[in-house]
Amino acid sequence: MSVRSDFHHALETLQQDLLRMGSYVEEAISLSTKALLDQDRQLASQVIANDDRIDRLQHDVEERCMKLIALQQPMAKDLRKISSAWRISLELERMADNACGVAKSVRRIAEQPYVKTLVNTPIMSSVCQQMVKMGLDAYLQEDIELAIKMSDLDNQVDALYKHIFNDLLQLMLKDPSVINQATQLIFIARYLERFGDHATNIAETVVYLVTGERKELNP
Amino acid sequence: MSVRSDFHHALETLQQDLLRMGSYVEEAISLSTKALLDQDRQLASQVIANDDRIDRLQHDVEERCMKLIALQQPMAKDLRKISSAWRISLELERMADNACGVAKSVRRIAEQPYVKTLVNTPIMSSVCQQMVKMGLDAYLQEDIELAIKMSDLDNQVDALYKHIFNDLLQLMLKDPSVINQATQLIFIARYLERFGDHATNIAETVVYLVTGERKELNP
Repeated sequence: MSVRSDFHHALETLQQDLLRMGSYVEEAISLSTKALLDQDRQLASQVIANDDRIDRLQHDVEERCMKLIALQQPMAKDLRKISSAWRISLELERMADNACGVAKSVRRIAEQPYVKTLVNTPIMSSVCQQMVKMGLDAYLQEDIELAIKMSDLDNQVDALYKHIFNDLLQLMLKDPSVINQATQLIFIARYLERFGDHATNIAETVVYLVTGERKELNP
Repeated sequence: MSVRSDFHHALETLQQDLLRMGSYVEEAISLSTKALLDQDRQLASQVIANDDRIDRLQHDVEERCMKLIALQQPMAKDLRKISSAWRISLELERMADNACGVAKSVRRIAEQPYVKTLVNTPIMSSVCQQMVKMGLDAYLQEDIELAIKMSDLDNQVDALYKHIFNDLLQLMLKDPSVINQATQLIFIARYLERFGDHATNIAETVVYLVTGERKELNP
């Protein structure tokens, strides 16, 4: 095989691993939300236990990115291809951490009846899941428009967060006995909001990959 | 200059930039805490405005790391030296983001009289500042013991967080009129707690740099 086709083969393997990481992350956020809705402590614990495999995969991707740069000395766009893979692996790892954060809060409140029906949180979670998919699609297809469309979804996530936060604050003011649980529900919304921020970082990485310019989306 | 001394010169410049980033981060967390204690909205806004220079420096460090790997093809320990510089620059950037988070919460509550005297939050902040210094020292001196000592401080940070969280929860339960402010004070403590986590990641990076092993400190 030529050096060039070695490079492309290694890049493809990296991209497959990012897709795998992405599907783990989607699963983590979807299961932690299911654990929240079903008040399922055991499922929440499973999400937390699964986080290890994402961390290991991220370290593996990171090391292969470095070695690939050292061995192939790619420049310009090719270099950005690898650095983007590396960056995206980091963002996915942080997104998985946020999913774990949700699961940890779920474990703290799963045994109490909920003080309100959770409507906006699962919506927020499904927008987040959509963002992971769109972000990885935008990366693989180097599609800036899709990346920007994805980062626009972060406005929805932010709006939902504010809504949930204010709702829960009002609820606490009316009935202080719910404070403990409401605080955890605020934390959960906040983890999802951070999740959206990391997804937006993926969109920014796609713009950098294609154009070589750093541009802040949704500052 | 030989290739080898080029490498060392480039590495030194990277390290100087990390020190500069570290001093910006220390300043950010120290000023945002001062803004909190003095109820100084303007100072909080300044911390937020200063964040740009840290982001720019991080991007610059990142690009130089990649080019250095491509040009010099370092292997083993030398490769880890660069990848560690890269990772640490990212952690510092996230720590600065957490300092900004503190500043943003300060802006939301600076105009109200505080519901309690803030004792533990400034202590938490000063432990965090100490962690930045120790982490960068441990990195420069490749001192694993110092890195582990630093990551032990994260236990103090976590304990302070729990203390602050429980205090504020009790306060809200007693007097629901403080809920709004107390929630922001919990967020501030949480940003500091995240700050400590990123500092611990720096300690883990030092262990990886020296030993080549990934080890989770304070899991």
